[in-house]
Amino acid sequence: MTHPPTAAHAALRAELRDLNDDYAASLDELDFARWTAFFTDDCLYRVVSLENFQAKLPLSTIACQGQGSLRDRAAAIRETAVFEPRTVRRMVSGVRVNALHEDGSVEAQASFAVFESLSDREPHLFMVGRYLDRLVRQDGRLLLRERVCVFDNYRVRTSLVYPL
Amino acid sequence: MTHPPTAAHAALRAELRDLNDDYAASLDELDFARWTAFFTDDCLYRVVSLENFQAKLPLSTIACQGQGSLRDRAAAIRETAVFEPRTVRRMVSGVRVNALHEDGSVEAQASFAVFESLSDREPHLFMVGRYLDRLVRQDGRLLLRERVCVFDNYRVRTSLVYPL
Amino acid sequence: MTHPPTAAHAALRAELRDLNDDYAASLDELDFARWTAFFTDDCLYRVVSLENFQAKLPLSTIACQGQGSLRDRAAAIRETAVFEPRTVRRMVSGVRVNALHEDGSVEAQASFAVFESLSDREPHLFMVGRYLDRLVRQDGRLLLRERVCVFDNYRVRTSLVYPL
Repeated sequence: MTHPPTAAHAALRAELRDLNDDYAASLDELDFARWTAFFTDDCLYRVVSLENFQAKLPLSTIACQGQGSLRDRAAAIRETAVFEPRTVRRMVSGVRVNALHEDGSVEAQASFAVFESLSDREPHLFMVGRYLDRLVRQDGRLLLRERVCVFDNYRVRTSLVYPL
Repeated sequence: MTHPPTAAHAALRAELRDLNDDYAASLDELDFARWTAFFTDDCLYRVVSLENFQAKLPLSTIACQGQGSLRDRAAAIRETAVFEPRTVRRMVSGVRVNALHEDGSVEAQASFAVFESLSDREPHLFMVGRYLDRLVRQDGRLLLRERVCVFDNYRVRTSLVYPL
Repeated sequence: MTHPPTAAHAALRAELRDLNDDYAASLDELDFARWTAFFTDDCLYRVVSLENFQAKLPLSTIACQGQGSLRDRAAAIRETAVFEPRTVRRMVSGVRVNALHEDGSVEAQASFAVFESLSDREPHLFMVGRYLDRLVRQDGRLLLRERVCVFDNYRVRTSLVYPL
């Protein structure tokens, strides 16, 4: 494993910025087919509070293993979940490469802020936190083998309808 | 029309990021001459709610057609509008190329969050939404022929004094 | 002194974006040793309100001169300050080059938003403002000789525990 110097990997970092911006747009636009295409077949996707993450507690707010599980989640949102309509806008910054592994996989992170607009109140900051990622390159494209969304909030206002 | 693959256009995307950051800074600094210089002579600039935008309703919160109209708007803010002083800070992320047209024009988008600070309360999230742009290159520089600012808010807290 | 055209300096700007993202991460992760390494030995670091900054008043919320002063500040936070635990997440955007000087130093700016999560309330926008920087290159790496953090807030909710 190589810990890359800060200044290096500018190109990889730029690629990760593009990936994160595309990821955010696909979810903001509720395009779940595009969302699942960011992950490998055997992916792990988790949403977990910082408290649980730091205490290494197993409880996740959302946990999906594999493409099928992601698609189930998306179908549940589209077809069965009952919730107040809302518009969600994600902003991603602080994209960083944490490690390059010999098998070509990449560890990376990014900060996210999620803003929610509902019909009866002001737009508000809904969630803030960090993506912790493990990516692999397949057919030239970086894919998420693992994305852990660690949110800083101690509680979740309203409910977490959409993935982060 | 070409729908570009996600991975392509990294250079154009970087250029658009720079443009959006410069745009935000010019408005944050109330430099309206710099702001109008981002647009073509025959530009269309609109601020519209997501509700109206999706319903294709014609009502815009702000609508300017052409440079003269932008300059009128700027003059009105500087010289005639009466409003409580405030500092506005715009953050732009999620810059994406949506389409490249054969005539060389570019369709692009970006997410914005606007934070407002007034003297008697905490800084707050004022607006959040998306820029939907059509750009053309003139003398080597990308200019906005059309910028539609679609805000997610269902209502506007205080009033929309400055352009987005 | 050269005022660079907007379109130029794309590479320098990309480098500054990486630097700002790394800076934010080091503070978000409370890694103060990494934080102080962004500054020159003879640095000036200040946090000041926009009101005081515009009126050229000398009062700063935080003022550190030189590496020793930065390290003192970090030690005070770790060892002596008493405050409610919180998680802070910084987002930086709007990175711009303002001037290139003949001695090789760079004037730059960026916008920041700081979100704070405490255990008994929703995550909230804590501060918003602008970094005004003077950087020099030492051993190939850009370092902050001066960073003035000008916050837009008219008041500071809770207290400013961590640097910006």
